[in-house]
Amino acid sequence: MTDPGKKNIALVTDFGHKDVFVGILKGVISSISPGASVIDLSHEVAPQDILHGSFFLSVSAVYFPRGTIFCVVVDPGVGSDRRAVLVKTKDYYFVGPDNGVLWQTAAENGIEQIIHLTQPRYFLETVSATFHGRDIFAPVAAHLSLGLEIEKFGDPATSLTPFEFPGPVKQDNCLILTVLHIDTYGNIILNITQDEFDCFMVSDFCLSVNHTCITPFFETYAAAEENTPFVMVSSSGYMEIAVKNKNAAQILGVERLDQITLSQP
Amino acid sequence: MTDPGKKNIALVTDFGHKDVFVGILKGVISSISPGASVIDLSHEVAPQDILHGSFFLSVSAVYFPRGTIFCVVVDPGVGSDRRAVLVKTKDYYFVGPDNGVLWQTAAENGIEQIIHLTQPRYFLETVSATFHGRDIFAPVAAHLSLGLEIEKFGDPATSLTPFEFPGPVKQDNCLILTVLHIDTYGNIILNITQDEFDCFMVSDFCLSVNHTCITPFFETYAAAEENTPFVMVSSSGYMEIAVKNKNAAQILGVERLDQITLSQP
Amino acid sequence: MTDPGKKNIALVTDFGHKDVFVGILKGVISSISPGASVIDLSHEVAPQDILHGSFFLSVSAVYFPRGTIFCVVVDPGVGSDRRAVLVKTKDYYFVGPDNGVLWQTAAENGIEQIIHLTQPRYFLETVSATFHGRDIFAPVAAHLSLGLEIEKFGDPATSLTPFEFPGPVKQDNCLILTVLHIDTYGNIILNITQDEFDCFMVSDFCLSVNHTCITPFFETYAAAEENTPFVMVSSSGYMEIAVKNKNAAQILGVERLDQITLSQP
Repeated sequence: MTDPGKKNIALVTDFGHKDVFVGILKGVISSISPGASVIDLSHEVAPQDILHGSFFLSVSAVYFPRGTIFCVVVDPGVGSDRRAVLVKTKDYYFVGPDNGVLWQTAAENGIEQIIHLTQPRYFLETVSATFHGRDIFAPVAAHLSLGLEIEKFGDPATSLTPFEFPGPVKQDNCLILTVLHIDTYGNIILNITQDEFDCFMVSDFCLSVNHTCITPFFETYAAAEENTPFVMVSSSGYMEIAVKNKNAAQILGVERLDQITLSQP
Repeated sequence: MTDPGKKNIALVTDFGHKDVFVGILKGVISSISPGASVIDLSHEVAPQDILHGSFFLSVSAVYFPRGTIFCVVVDPGVGSDRRAVLVKTKDYYFVGPDNGVLWQTAAENGIEQIIHLTQPRYFLETVSATFHGRDIFAPVAAHLSLGLEIEKFGDPATSLTPFEFPGPVKQDNCLILTVLHIDTYGNIILNITQDEFDCFMVSDFCLSVNHTCITPFFETYAAAEENTPFVMVSSSGYMEIAVKNKNAAQILGVERLDQITLSQP
Repeated sequence: MTDPGKKNIALVTDFGHKDVFVGILKGVISSISPGASVIDLSHEVAPQDILHGSFFLSVSAVYFPRGTIFCVVVDPGVGSDRRAVLVKTKDYYFVGPDNGVLWQTAAENGIEQIIHLTQPRYFLETVSATFHGRDIFAPVAAHLSLGLEIEKFGDPATSLTPFEFPGPVKQDNCLILTVLHIDTYGNIILNITQDEFDCFMVSDFCLSVNHTCITPFFETYAAAEENTPFVMVSSSGYMEIAVKNKNAAQILGVERLDQITLSQP
């Protein structure tokens, strides 16, 4: 029985939408595997930012069907000696550079096999020094979607370059948190899960953001008060700071990777 | 005979393109209904703006095949007690929050059945308080595309929350118009159709915009004069203000929802 | 034997992502040809810019499968007497306005047949004066994807409006170059290929950009020095100016269509 999900190729890149790079990936995939179903997971990873790409992948992968091939192109080291890899996990396949961007999600899902992509017969005929998404990763994902065994793509490797999210850092009686992402509405996603948050806080809390102490917690945007920053559990499972129907990041002057202190007032 | 269009799911959201939200919807749909064909109608509805979402839907739906399922996620009240609904009209299906965003288009097409989405077996296993697009609307649209009867999704409802576009307002000898949309080229779309415009105007007209009186009318951009704002019939059927090969909204300093006065000079 | 690639319709437009125009094209195509596979090559051609559209098409087409139908909507003259055409080349089909945007790519691939689109039975029933992408080009591309012979779409034409990229211009001992494109990372793409560059330069070079003389050449981003503008071969085959992991166009204050002087120091 074939795995129907195996025809799905999900793209995660930092190409943005202003250029032809995504279109070219799709042309390449369609040339090799006309029946593949290509899904844009996101092309708005911050340029060359492995942490941001890793975050996008890890909060999304679980919503894709078993057998999905994630083709990940966040590749600041393209043309250097960083390896190109194919990773098989319990439920998925990942194709991309071995620079850490695949690590968190692959490890969470359970790594079963790692292949170093060394077989040029599954690349485009000419491999450039600057666009391996087009020349290596998309062609490999496309050939994989045709049902090829993963051993064909190169030599087995024993390890993947690790890269873990920065976690909350304990400092005296506080936790120093990092902003992982500003979402499309301006909500501020923090690097602390609901469980970690609940463990740390015994009573009230204060999230210090640019001299503002945020203390309210609400379960939904609708329940919150107007114009008042509050804390909630984001749909990704991480805690977030939001302002009802407004852009919290703009209001609070917060940017991605800023640090925010969680304390007991 | 199956309805071939029924496999089409058209997405209308305010998610933008900067985040993983759209990709997650597609992952969810693909997990439930691998054969569904997902079309991005637009993800650039102004955040939480029911009027804007309603406008996008109403000028576009007619171009989609019979049986298309419109999955609409413009949902400022997510997590409140606003209902989630499935609406069957003469030609289409609509899935989304019952906050008015579906009303105009569904009513124009002819509402046949309304179902209150109360059957959690067609939702994701865990339903968050903040992302019903992922947890309820996309899964319901996907199950519907598999051919499920709409009665299975919940209880029949008798009415849909109405929400009508603001129309032109008569004031003495003038009409006060509202800007419904600034299009991608900067053309200014007004809330008056060609028929209404023709009915009101007996001879010359003046559209007063920030102390400028716009009087020329042209049928095409190509026919217009350079650098001169003019009025034409937009491709949506509404009247628009344009400047040939330029961004009229920027030149005239006009924003969405601004009011503009139509008078006879 | 049918040509499997013939079902592919690749869209190239200047519609951007902020509007419903792209979604409407897809609705129209899906209504006529439900089995067609639509690929977004790019919707971010600079508004009404034939040179930019021509550039995007020419650097991308070769990555698409044989038989792909390119539906190109960069159409400042919509509603004027410019012709609407269908062009068959050695490997592809092109549908769009005959304003030059198709010329470069069609000519490079080898023009075999040109049809003037005069058969309204393959248009939408009502053809507007302002949106031929929706009313003419998408419907024709969709009917073509169903396998219709191209002669059915109108009268044979003998020529296509030519439009060639501006090439490097010799001036004394220098070459005056033009910026064809700023890519998504801020790399500056010049109108000179690697071959042309190598022919002109006998030894060292200086690319003069706003009083900076750029002299280093590197083969990859990874090999370059931090914070130092350098020259490399872009993945499109044209030469580019880049700054490692930074936005070269912003750093150097360069915009599309700027002129840059290549000389020997």
